[in-house]
Amino acid sequence: MENLYIVKIGGNIIDDESLLATFLKKFASIKSKKILVHGGGKLATRLAEKMGIPQQLIDGRRITDAETLKIVTMVYAGYINKHIVAQLQFLDCNACGFTGADGNSILAHKREKEGIDYGFAGDIDHVDAGWFNGLLKDGMALVIAPITHNGKNQLLNTNADTIAQEIAKAMSPYYEISLVYGFEKSGVLLDISDEKSVIHILRYGYYRELIESKKIYAGMIPKLDNAFTALREGVHQVIIGKGEELDLLITGKSGTTISHE
Amino acid sequence: MENLYIVKIGGNIIDDESLLATFLKKFASIKSKKILVHGGGKLATRLAEKMGIPQQLIDGRRITDAETLKIVTMVYAGYINKHIVAQLQFLDCNACGFTGADGNSILAHKREKEGIDYGFAGDIDHVDAGWFNGLLKDGMALVIAPITHNGKNQLLNTNADTIAQEIAKAMSPYYEISLVYGFEKSGVLLDISDEKSVIHILRYGYYRELIESKKIYAGMIPKLDNAFTALREGVHQVIIGKGEELDLLITGKSGTTISHE
Repeated sequence: MENLYIVKIGGNIIDDESLLATFLKKFASIKSKKILVHGGGKLATRLAEKMGIPQQLIDGRRITDAETLKIVTMVYAGYINKHIVAQLQFLDCNACGFTGADGNSILAHKREKEGIDYGFAGDIDHVDAGWFNGLLKDGMALVIAPITHNGKNQLLNTNADTIAQEIAKAMSPYYEISLVYGFEKSGVLLDISDEKSVIHILRYGYYRELIESKKIYAGMIPKLDNAFTALREGVHQVIIGKGEELDLLITGKSGTTISHE
Repeated sequence: MENLYIVKIGGNIIDDESLLATFLKKFASIKSKKILVHGGGKLATRLAEKMGIPQQLIDGRRITDAETLKIVTMVYAGYINKHIVAQLQFLDCNACGFTGADGNSILAHKREKEGIDYGFAGDIDHVDAGWFNGLLKDGMALVIAPITHNGKNQLLNTNADTIAQEIAKAMSPYYEISLVYGFEKSGVLLDISDEKSVIHILRYGYYRELIESKKIYAGMIPKLDNAFTALREGVHQVIIGKGEELDLLITGKSGTTISHE
């Protein structure tokens, strides 16, 4: 099967023009088909502050209220997405940026659990693999902003990690998929304070051992659980490491490769 | 030849939720292939004010400086574009929104004339008809934000009327094109103070007569000159009138149809 790289980057790269430029050069030079999913970064928070829109927190969770949704739509789907697309074009990498509303490509519903109001946060119901396939066939790099919709005229703020994972699962019947999570650390660390303690290959048995001996940082567990789920659902490999080392990540010279065996 | 409708709407519709909803219902119900080009509206100006970014005017012209370009990219390509796409999806009209940077679809250069600095304003060099054709073939409505790029990592603020016209010209070898300009007036008026004085069909000879007798409002002349140019370059018809009367405009029951004969 043909390779497809699905790469997610977050705020640590998006907020740093020089890291972003390094990352995009490496992304543009991937010869295989590729999809970039970007998160938000601090620009949305700064914009909300400038506009005097208070950040709503309920029980420590940030809430996407109507005004915040407007801002993240502007910043994620507008500024960040088009900024990345223009840079990729300059790097001779034809790219098209969009959200889950465009082409009805990612349908979601408003998150509601046990009576808690999460605001306009989306949980994904369906990824239209045909839409992604159609655009990839033209050799285009796809750049996805973390905004989806519910088909009922409601845009929804949606976690970029989850978008990357759901696209990977939906595309797995058609491609050998490498799902790369760009991250502020060099990979999964045995010792959180030591960047050199990267686990190069993390197999499921070893992962369970590390959890039992409490050697894995608690915040990593949902990320890694999702990675193993993605592998079970047909993704070929999941790689976690510094986005700006993308060339080394995809050749296995850096970061942590999650393996199901 | 198959029909293609290219419809441009401006601030008077974009700034009015109820007019926009009426317009989009009518746009969604067009059975033929269709492209919507939207302008900006007042949201960008309001956002700039809230953020304390001064509007630069040089000799009465508003200048798109770097900060203003950031804002128009957010508002036009982010908020307005995705807001329209989500509404069209709700109306069962599959739609995809993008800018001229996406798919390298509209290349422009930074306007520079006689040493005057226009800021980041783009003049169009090339529209990639193949890109538009590819997406139209999937039966998708295309929604274009008035942002282009120069291929050198520079986004450019670009006049929506001009984008609509340039797309129309580029697509004219493939379709019988109706180019519709949504407008705050009912059409081209013989008497600017009388909405009932709409000229239903404006032929070139009559247009020249009206200019000579100074019966045409000066501000309309560049718009109408462009319309006649579009007809000369292969566009089938140009219609000018109220966007919210789109159904009547395209059946010739309202507005002004510009005709070359």
